[in-house]
Amino acid sequence: MSVRKSTNSGTMSSPAAQLVLPHIAQMAGYVPGEQLAGDSIVKLNTNENPYPPSRKVRDAIAAACEDLVLYPDPSAREVRECVADLYGVDADGVLVGNGSDELLSVLVRATTASGQGIAYPVPTYSLYDTLTALQGARAIRIPFGPDYSLPAELAAADARLFFLCNPNAPSGTILPRADLETFADRRSDAVVVIDEAYVDFADESAVGLVERSPNVVVLRTLSKSYSLAGLRVGLALTSVGLARQLHKVRDSYNVSRIAQAGALAALKDQAAMRAHVDQVRATRTRLSVGLREMGFTVLESQANFVLAQRPGEDASGLAERLRDRRILVRYFPDLPESLRISVGTDGEIDALLKALAEILSAART
Amino acid sequence: MSVRKSTNSGTMSSPAAQLVLPHIAQMAGYVPGEQLAGDSIVKLNTNENPYPPSRKVRDAIAAACEDLVLYPDPSAREVRECVADLYGVDADGVLVGNGSDELLSVLVRATTASGQGIAYPVPTYSLYDTLTALQGARAIRIPFGPDYSLPAELAAADARLFFLCNPNAPSGTILPRADLETFADRRSDAVVVIDEAYVDFADESAVGLVERSPNVVVLRTLSKSYSLAGLRVGLALTSVGLARQLHKVRDSYNVSRIAQAGALAALKDQAAMRAHVDQVRATRTRLSVGLREMGFTVLESQANFVLAQRPGEDASGLAERLRDRRILVRYFPDLPESLRISVGTDGEIDALLKALAEILSAART
Repeated sequence: MSVRKSTNSGTMSSPAAQLVLPHIAQMAGYVPGEQLAGDSIVKLNTNENPYPPSRKVRDAIAAACEDLVLYPDPSAREVRECVADLYGVDADGVLVGNGSDELLSVLVRATTASGQGIAYPVPTYSLYDTLTALQGARAIRIPFGPDYSLPAELAAADARLFFLCNPNAPSGTILPRADLETFADRRSDAVVVIDEAYVDFADESAVGLVERSPNVVVLRTLSKSYSLAGLRVGLALTSVGLARQLHKVRDSYNVSRIAQAGALAALKDQAAMRAHVDQVRATRTRLSVGLREMGFTVLESQANFVLAQRPGEDASGLAERLRDRRILVRYFPDLPESLRISVGTDGEIDALLKALAEILSAART
Repeated sequence: MSVRKSTNSGTMSSPAAQLVLPHIAQMAGYVPGEQLAGDSIVKLNTNENPYPPSRKVRDAIAAACEDLVLYPDPSAREVRECVADLYGVDADGVLVGNGSDELLSVLVRATTASGQGIAYPVPTYSLYDTLTALQGARAIRIPFGPDYSLPAELAAADARLFFLCNPNAPSGTILPRADLETFADRRSDAVVVIDEAYVDFADESAVGLVERSPNVVVLRTLSKSYSLAGLRVGLALTSVGLARQLHKVRDSYNVSRIAQAGALAALKDQAAMRAHVDQVRATRTRLSVGLREMGFTVLESQANFVLAQRPGEDASGLAERLRDRRILVRYFPDLPESLRISVGTDGEIDALLKALAEILSAART
């Protein structure tokens, strides 16, 4: 997911800052995440899939190149119908977005006015903070407990919109479907977003809630399990009534012909996706075991990354020393004793574990 | 451009309508434009280019398919640098969007709070109305006079943001650069957007204003002159200070790897674009002359379409009878005596003129 740093904020006194709204001028600027050059990098910092997408994606994209002169289908009907078949939902309750990030932005703009509340347990996907700030809305951030179960206070929040990243990033933990169902019922006055970006790597999905709870929106992305982070396709599954409202807010031609064609091919090749997901899950187990053997506490992950903690560890320094060896992992200032490590290939994880062992052993001597 | 009809509005009493903001629930729903099936359609209703994009686009897209597993460059640096070279602007003042529609949405969200004003002369691109309504902002719509010059009252509007579609849709007319310069100076307290979606078909661009007026944003799209409506790429050129603010509002990964690669190839092949633009301009002259010979008043067009008017004409009926002959043109209820006709190939325009002559002759007998 995206890297944001709190630097480079526009000062209110600059002429450009006067041209935009005060809450935009006061926000921190976006600084793109570091990309090291070269082929020898082991990149375990952005939860990309180490395996390629279905081979059928390339052919579908080549075919779509024939018609680039024409606007795309504004509602991405074929993709919506394929999603409806896959998950047993109504195609009119499906939206396709330019990545699930666009759909998150649509949800904020559709539901929450400036000053109203948006609530979510933290730590979680940092884009929720950014989107809330962009709308001038009020972020209600309820801390998770150490077991990352649903915080009891969340349901009482004065909010129009709830974000539940599930499996959660960066913890990798998942909330049981029964808890989500109870929560959606209790807050039937608000939109409850279950962000399932990583759910294909988990044992269970909450997509079935869409049929019974008209206020639930389940988000999916093709960036992780389908290995298509570069294509930008996200999906929202919800009730037909709520989908009709959300369609008004998205851009009319928000998904290109190429993205629609590629997404359709990828969704239809479930076998390719499943094979890579199974491999990632197997490697995830090896990674968790290896880290625990080195003394890390590793939460049981249902995603394609793990969060590894060592009490008293300077995780920032550890990430730096790994980077010296051209291995990138993710460090969050809010979690100073933890590293988030994406599940790469077996070879990449071997390299990581070896490097970590050497760094820790050098530190002890 | 997009087709919107005022139907299907969400009623405030439905459960889904309670979940979204009142101004969203009250808006008309989006209904995608009609697409007739079959190969024999002459499609002159959405201002697409009748000629294909540069052949180099397909190769660039095929190459980009190799890296779809990785997130795209969040700031589209290579595209920005190419645009900077082409137009002699600073690459840090350029934004790339998922179509210029996304950039229009970013501009509204960055500058104008609920209840504040957004001003533009009308008739113009109908998306300005939609985006203003989505933000809960106040549309200040100042009618053009019959010559489509800049209405004098516009500069006095209580607005944070101005939209000047130039060349204007659906009139095809262009405002002189000197008038735009004066306007930008007079309203240095507001953001002045010059939407140059069609400017490659015109004699003159206002892109030079970007260097001298920090409040000016010039928008471009690859959907028209570059024949890439299906790829979704738009460009904003502005001052570095304002660009820094606008970057905060767009999605972090808003332009896919495919769209970046295709856009770069298209922008680098100016010769391909220019050849097709010259052809469209030549056919535009033939179309205008032919329509005038039939008694239509045709405004001098600087775009890839013309607006043809006949006082007393039922243009809606005329569009229907053309449609019976599988020729699509655009009718606007606000302009009951006018048709907007996209410039197709010479063959398509011959077919249109022949059909129109037959319909008008049948009506007289």
